[in-house]
Amino acid sequence: MSLLDKLDAVAAARKALLPEGVEVFGTPIEEVYSSTEARIGDHRILFLGTNNYLGLTFAQECRDAAQEAIHNEGTGTTGSRMANGSYSGHRALEREFAEFYQCGSCIVFTTGYQANLATISGLAGAGDIVLIDGDSHASIYDGCRLSGAEIIRFRHNDAADLEKRLRRLGERSRSTLIIAEGIYSMLGDRAPLADIVKVKDAYNSTLLLDEAHSLGVLGETGQGLVEETGLLDRVDFITGTFSKSLGGIGGYCVSNHPQLDQLRYVSRPYIFTASPTPATIASTRAALKLLREGVELRRQLWKNVHQLYSQLKELGYRLGPEPSPVIATILETPQQALALWKGLLEQGIYVNLVLPPATPEGNSLVRCSVSAVHTSEQMDHVGKTFAMLRETIFQ
Amino acid sequence: MSLLDKLDAVAAARKALLPEGVEVFGTPIEEVYSSTEARIGDHRILFLGTNNYLGLTFAQECRDAAQEAIHNEGTGTTGSRMANGSYSGHRALEREFAEFYQCGSCIVFTTGYQANLATISGLAGAGDIVLIDGDSHASIYDGCRLSGAEIIRFRHNDAADLEKRLRRLGERSRSTLIIAEGIYSMLGDRAPLADIVKVKDAYNSTLLLDEAHSLGVLGETGQGLVEETGLLDRVDFITGTFSKSLGGIGGYCVSNHPQLDQLRYVSRPYIFTASPTPATIASTRAALKLLREGVELRRQLWKNVHQLYSQLKELGYRLGPEPSPVIATILETPQQALALWKGLLEQGIYVNLVLPPATPEGNSLVRCSVSAVHTSEQMDHVGKTFAMLRETIFQ
Repeated sequence: MSLLDKLDAVAAARKALLPEGVEVFGTPIEEVYSSTEARIGDHRILFLGTNNYLGLTFAQECRDAAQEAIHNEGTGTTGSRMANGSYSGHRALEREFAEFYQCGSCIVFTTGYQANLATISGLAGAGDIVLIDGDSHASIYDGCRLSGAEIIRFRHNDAADLEKRLRRLGERSRSTLIIAEGIYSMLGDRAPLADIVKVKDAYNSTLLLDEAHSLGVLGETGQGLVEETGLLDRVDFITGTFSKSLGGIGGYCVSNHPQLDQLRYVSRPYIFTASPTPATIASTRAALKLLREGVELRRQLWKNVHQLYSQLKELGYRLGPEPSPVIATILETPQQALALWKGLLEQGIYVNLVLPPATPEGNSLVRCSVSAVHTSEQMDHVGKTFAMLRETIFQ
Repeated sequence: MSLLDKLDAVAAARKALLPEGVEVFGTPIEEVYSSTEARIGDHRILFLGTNNYLGLTFAQECRDAAQEAIHNEGTGTTGSRMANGSYSGHRALEREFAEFYQCGSCIVFTTGYQANLATISGLAGAGDIVLIDGDSHASIYDGCRLSGAEIIRFRHNDAADLEKRLRRLGERSRSTLIIAEGIYSMLGDRAPLADIVKVKDAYNSTLLLDEAHSLGVLGETGQGLVEETGLLDRVDFITGTFSKSLGGIGGYCVSNHPQLDQLRYVSRPYIFTASPTPATIASTRAALKLLREGVELRRQLWKNVHQLYSQLKELGYRLGPEPSPVIATILETPQQALALWKGLLEQGIYVNLVLPPATPEGNSLVRCSVSAVHTSEQMDHVGKTFAMLRETIFQ
């Protein structure tokens, strides 16, 4: 079969699953009004599927900083950090992240996806072993694949299963990298970090924690799960992204291991990519400041989270195991999920439809992402709509 | 050996090659004054190593468009095209690229690196074969590795060698992908596109051409090597980047094959990454317009190219095989290359030092990148400095 024939087969399979004319993926957004409102077709809609957890994409400080940077330094850097130099903003943001995590080193990357690719493929290579949670994000899988290391999956959030797999490796457990996530993107559940840290220590392994969905969300100053659990010092490497709570694009890795800095010389997804634009660096620096000080934003975020999670639970929806800004409704069939997704959109609420094989255990998800800047009126409308749809779709 | 011990070994090897205190990679840039001038330490320097071929990072139209987009749509999209929707700007830029190349389809990506990862790993998979030029960019190698396809390298710019390798594959040649580049980033030479197209047709293969360094540089309207050679219709997929001649960050793939659109549903580096920011999309749209109309910019660019290439040749420097905006001086030892790089910087000229193993045939390179907006005074200073260093370093 030629390469193009294979893509035709993909198209046919997708057409069979989804009715013609429903643009559930890549839905056209005509206009964006704010962090939470936009227009789809002729309808004003509420964003309830973006990862804008603190609503900072429209923060005046962030927009001002980005605009000023464009004025001063232009629209891009036209090259990599290695070849075209490190702008003062790149280095300042790295210092600010290192200081935020009280860590010795930080590297910033052009996307969050590339942060994981660069860190994992820089740390591990042929002959090494990476142990990853079965529900890991695609960027973690792809980073492992790129590294050439052997990949071992442990059962989602199961430290005992991780321990069992390390035990089997014997002497080889010393050249292993364990990877977990602060909050998992599909069901919104946290990693059992204390248990994982214990296992890691027992086997002299190295632990990488991806705080993509937990940065700005967990912990007093928003460091993530490491702060909520008090385990910052016990994690070897932390990665995260600028494109969720920080409202930009890019990613970071922080560590107390001075070896992190060597990744600049060996990690291809860092070396061979253009560096972040001045606008992104500037808005992210401003956003990081707001995030650290954002105690009130986090209080508002968690108020919205608890309200929606308990409403949906009361209504009888099957949900992820614990409240978090990612609130996933688990449906039995893709058809039910599509009906719920469409019903919400008809009421002006735009969420994520996630169908197998992208989902854990082959479930179909309607996934909401709650923001600190969703108003109580907006949250009430969401609750009422879910209640109405419960009666019409699942009667 | 633990993961961290291996990085210590990397650090030791690098320290042995480069003397302490010389920051040749990731040189700190303190301030950026324009597309061509900046400050390193206390010294005003000339950028002669960035890929700002048309100097568009400071074009007023591009900066205005980016600033307006930040005002209207915020600093980022906080999610992927698939999950968080396609902003009107994303779709408009895709239409404009498709129209520019007179192609049916276009996808834009968040980085140029990810454009190659997404396109290659979306088109090819386990059981397929990718034939790549031996001097291919890291993003092409990494895309192949991610795809799981078998990788076969053919000799750099040698269509006869490509033919030989396809012939050996027999029936399997039908599920192959051939990848070449418009201009190669190390020595600035073009692919022998007419010869490669003939081989591709003879074996019913599929051809992907990366125009990263040739977009805006080659052809009347700047399409790249496909336009210069009149072979646009004979190439199956074209990828390129926003971070060189367009002055932004991101990448694209265009094709007349309707199957390109299916990559949106299968290609992980597209699906699982946040979409380009409003600022980047807006500046890139403005830059694409300037690029297409930039006949005068290209005339000026090639005037600078020919001037520097012939000056260096006359001075006896060993250069890449043909003039192009990438002008690489090939040195015999890393020490010579470092001396030349330092000598240029002392005269206020900042270029790229490229050492093995990143270089073809283990050479050490001092690589210049010429821009349309380098003035004749700047180019004269560059020529005179190379002349002076020729006498002092190679006496």
